[in-house]
Amino acid sequence: MSSPSSLDELIDALRCLPGVGPRSAQRMAYHLLQRDQRGAARLAHAMGRALDVLRHCERCNTFSETDVCARCANPRRDARQLCVVEMPADLAVIEHTHAFDGLYYVLMGRLSPLDGIGPRELKLDKLIARATDGVVEEVILATNFTNEGEATAHTVAELLGARGLKVSRLSRGVPVGGELEHVDAGTVAQALVERRTF
Amino acid sequence: MSSPSSLDELIDALRCLPGVGPRSAQRMAYHLLQRDQRGAARLAHAMGRALDVLRHCERCNTFSETDVCARCANPRRDARQLCVVEMPADLAVIEHTHAFDGLYYVLMGRLSPLDGIGPRELKLDKLIARATDGVVEEVILATNFTNEGEATAHTVAELLGARGLKVSRLSRGVPVGGELEHVDAGTVAQALVERRTF
Ligand SMILES: [Zn+2]
Ligand SMILES: [Zn+2]
Repeated sequence: MSSPSSLDELIDALRCLPGVGPRSAQRMAYHLLQRDQRGAARLAHAMGRALDVLRHCERCNTFSETDVCARCANPRRDARQLCVVEMPADLAVIEHTHAFDGLYYVLMGRLSPLDGIGPRELKLDKLIARATDGVVEEVILATNFTNEGEATAHTVAELLGARGLKVSRLSRGVPVGGELEHVDAGTVAQALVERRTF
Repeated sequence: MSSPSSLDELIDALRCLPGVGPRSAQRMAYHLLQRDQRGAARLAHAMGRALDVLRHCERCNTFSETDVCARCANPRRDARQLCVVEMPADLAVIEHTHAFDGLYYVLMGRLSPLDGIGPRELKLDKLIARATDGVVEEVILATNFTNEGEATAHTVAELLGARGLKVSRLSRGVPVGGELEHVDAGTVAQALVERRTF
């Protein structure tokens, strides 16, 4: 008498998407089944494929289809500078400034004690191993200037500073409380140039 | 140098979801790949399965895994009354009242000229064929009391009335338990017009 189980399953599964509650999961399921079966098939396929082929780059930790991503494998990048960002989108913002030709490390998150994300969950040991490869001389912290991003920068600075690395932070050209993704490239470039020793 | 194509594909595919723009598609993709691969796998599977097995019930047009859904196949329902609703969720609301034991027809939408959804797109001929099966005596219109729902009810009423069927509409009025003071004037006015003999 109730709805078909495959429909209930789909509605329920859609709730794994961030910000999607029961009502909007239902709306999404109806929309996909009723108005966009091609889009739904494409999404199911893209999701399956992404799960199959994506892994984390061994060096920079960002999403990659190969063990080492193309950027990390590029010998023209300056391997002495390592820029630490929270997410791949932040990396893209910095690349877009054309003001940095070093390498990156993508945390894939930030310290967030309230969400149970501490140094272990953020796998900071992987960053430490990467930064202490003997080639990296300076680590530039480009986490967001939010409370969590600042706390993350502080913790990383302590961990890496204790290991004799020069650690710097993007200057506060970035508005306090601002997220890199929402800042114009010129400001980010300036913040990069004026980075200060942590 | 850019993001892996399978990641871009996933982000792009997520945009087929209603209300999901580029920024939130990106956030969803990161979340799924980074924090909820199990949820993502389940979603991809549930979507594939729903696309495979779900069709529209031949009689009531709602989503069903069989040609005729269990409700329509139930001989204990009163086949002389047919309640027309916009979406499966509306059907569920009416079932929940336990005040109706007839059958349903689910439009899977509403007339919406601005979105290019006219009588043809809504497949009103399927409803007409269903309602004129010789068994249905009364069609109860339970579309929403929005502009589009009212226009839909009006059009359906004309089409079915012309074929000699009794057509009724859910009454408008003061909600049960409602205080006049907190009900909008339009509703109170309507309740006055539609007053019934005590
Ligand atoms: Zn890499
Ligand atoms: Zn049915």
